[in-house]
Amino acid sequence: MAVYTPVDDRDLEAFLSGYDVGTLLSAKGIAEGVENTNYLVRTTGGTFILTLYEQRVDPADLPFFLGLMEHCAGKGLVTPRPIHRCDGTTLSILCGRSAAMVTFLDGVAVRRPGPKHCLELGRGLARLHLATADFTLTRRNGLGPHAWRPLFDRSREDADRVIPGLTAIVDDELAAIDREWPAGLPEGVIHADLFTDNAFFVGAKLSGIIDFYFACNDILAYDLAVCLNAWCFEDDGMFNVTKAQALTAGYSAVRPLTREERDALPMLARGSALRFMLTRLHDWLRVPPGALVTPKDPKPYYERLRFHRSVASASAYGLD
Amino acid sequence: MAVYTPVDDRDLEAFLSGYDVGTLLSAKGIAEGVENTNYLVRTTGGTFILTLYEQRVDPADLPFFLGLMEHCAGKGLVTPRPIHRCDGTTLSILCGRSAAMVTFLDGVAVRRPGPKHCLELGRGLARLHLATADFTLTRRNGLGPHAWRPLFDRSREDADRVIPGLTAIVDDELAAIDREWPAGLPEGVIHADLFTDNAFFVGAKLSGIIDFYFACNDILAYDLAVCLNAWCFEDDGMFNVTKAQALTAGYSAVRPLTREERDALPMLARGSALRFMLTRLHDWLRVPPGALVTPKDPKPYYERLRFHRSVASASAYGLD
Repeated sequence: MAVYTPVDDRDLEAFLSGYDVGTLLSAKGIAEGVENTNYLVRTTGGTFILTLYEQRVDPADLPFFLGLMEHCAGKGLVTPRPIHRCDGTTLSILCGRSAAMVTFLDGVAVRRPGPKHCLELGRGLARLHLATADFTLTRRNGLGPHAWRPLFDRSREDADRVIPGLTAIVDDELAAIDREWPAGLPEGVIHADLFTDNAFFVGAKLSGIIDFYFACNDILAYDLAVCLNAWCFEDDGMFNVTKAQALTAGYSAVRPLTREERDALPMLARGSALRFMLTRLHDWLRVPPGALVTPKDPKPYYERLRFHRSVASASAYGLD
Repeated sequence: MAVYTPVDDRDLEAFLSGYDVGTLLSAKGIAEGVENTNYLVRTTGGTFILTLYEQRVDPADLPFFLGLMEHCAGKGLVTPRPIHRCDGTTLSILCGRSAAMVTFLDGVAVRRPGPKHCLELGRGLARLHLATADFTLTRRNGLGPHAWRPLFDRSREDADRVIPGLTAIVDDELAAIDREWPAGLPEGVIHADLFTDNAFFVGAKLSGIIDFYFACNDILAYDLAVCLNAWCFEDDGMFNVTKAQALTAGYSAVRPLTREERDALPMLARGSALRFMLTRLHDWLRVPPGALVTPKDPKPYYERLRFHRSVASASAYGLD
């Protein structure tokens, strides 16, 4: 939620001269994403998002992310489309950072989505999964199950101070994941971070899916489990089965879930809740003094984890 | 350079329903201004800047600022035009803050303006001064000469630590201002903060003057002196007489300076340099620990002050 790299008018004009987008009309640093610097750029040729990739993004991953966006946009999905430079590339350098420009997507993020938004989101997620079946680049999930134990070990000493009894529950959960994490489910490219701030709506219609910088290859239904956690719990922590039913129904209408995927959904939801609880716990314990960005509280994801541990079958999520 | 007040989609939609601007298409928190929260809002009716006024703006001043923008825009100046709500007002409340919406202006701020930009800016400033002659609201300059001594007293103890010898020079300068500050010059509404980041250009054409939140009634030529300091010195601190000549020529072509105004320009430029040196010194000494916003260094304005103290007449600024 900050502009990390200031770009002055001359640097920007020189950068834009590498594109066939006309002349610069305006550029505003925007508070979108927490990892990169983003500018909303208007030229005589259109409106774009210019991203300067800051240090938390590995430049080696950028061809995957940009290629993925281009692949999806090319199939008509509501994803940003990277703009090609006159030399044909989509990636260049601006102010010492890797930089790319993508199409601007209308829409606003919905902080408290309703069932209609969840239905739309489910459809959009399934379309994303289908559209990427023939995407040839791959990227390993750096925050998949193998990463969770070492991630927790970095916070283990302080964990019970943040949430009493947390260590015992996480250890139990990690053991369960070792034993029961599903194998053999359909895999493909997943968004892996499709929270409400990464989906735009105009009215009740999904108009944009953004921020592909956690996208990777993993179990497709795990992506649905991420969305169950991100979209179907209320501010007070209560699970809203109506929204979950809408989400899963929207998804299934486009890409029907197999029996094995349905059966695995509670464990995938536990894993997804654990993953976000662990990264939030990690960041919560490492807030730089005086930081203006408030870290996200791990507790809501701890509560989601507890909820999913109590779930006997996918019927709890509105699936029959 | 931060979004202080997050506004969610429902609050924003409710707010926009008070205007005849169609339906919401997008809203991005933008890094513009350091005092307030700004969103770039697109609706089916147009593109707007939504400002939530944070604590450093006195709500009692808002009718002056908004009225001034409306007055200027109504005369065809390139200033933001406040959008009227359906009830006729331009000011309302959003997320507990006073809030207003104005037209979006194309253009980019020029970090290193050339003589052409200075010429345009001079014309624009003079047009602003002429256009406000019949603006009926008034606002006292809270950062005028009367404020400089008490402002310095708050930094006096630490001043020589920041710039060796500063106290002696400021005391000498304050005494000179007591003795020699010009009286009887034409007064009116001045922008009072027309730095390069508050003027937009499309190519070499002035397309916007923004950020009227220091505007007040004071000596008109003082506003030109502010611009001399803000626009006509290079990054290395050197005064660029070509730019000054362009700035004053642009101004004079629209509103000719009187002999008294020309004669007073060196003293007005000293006062203006002192004013910004003092506020920067004040903020420089009070950086909150861990603040992400870097305060502006007072030294360049100290150097400008020294330059203007050496100036014998307005001919140094390219005026004959």
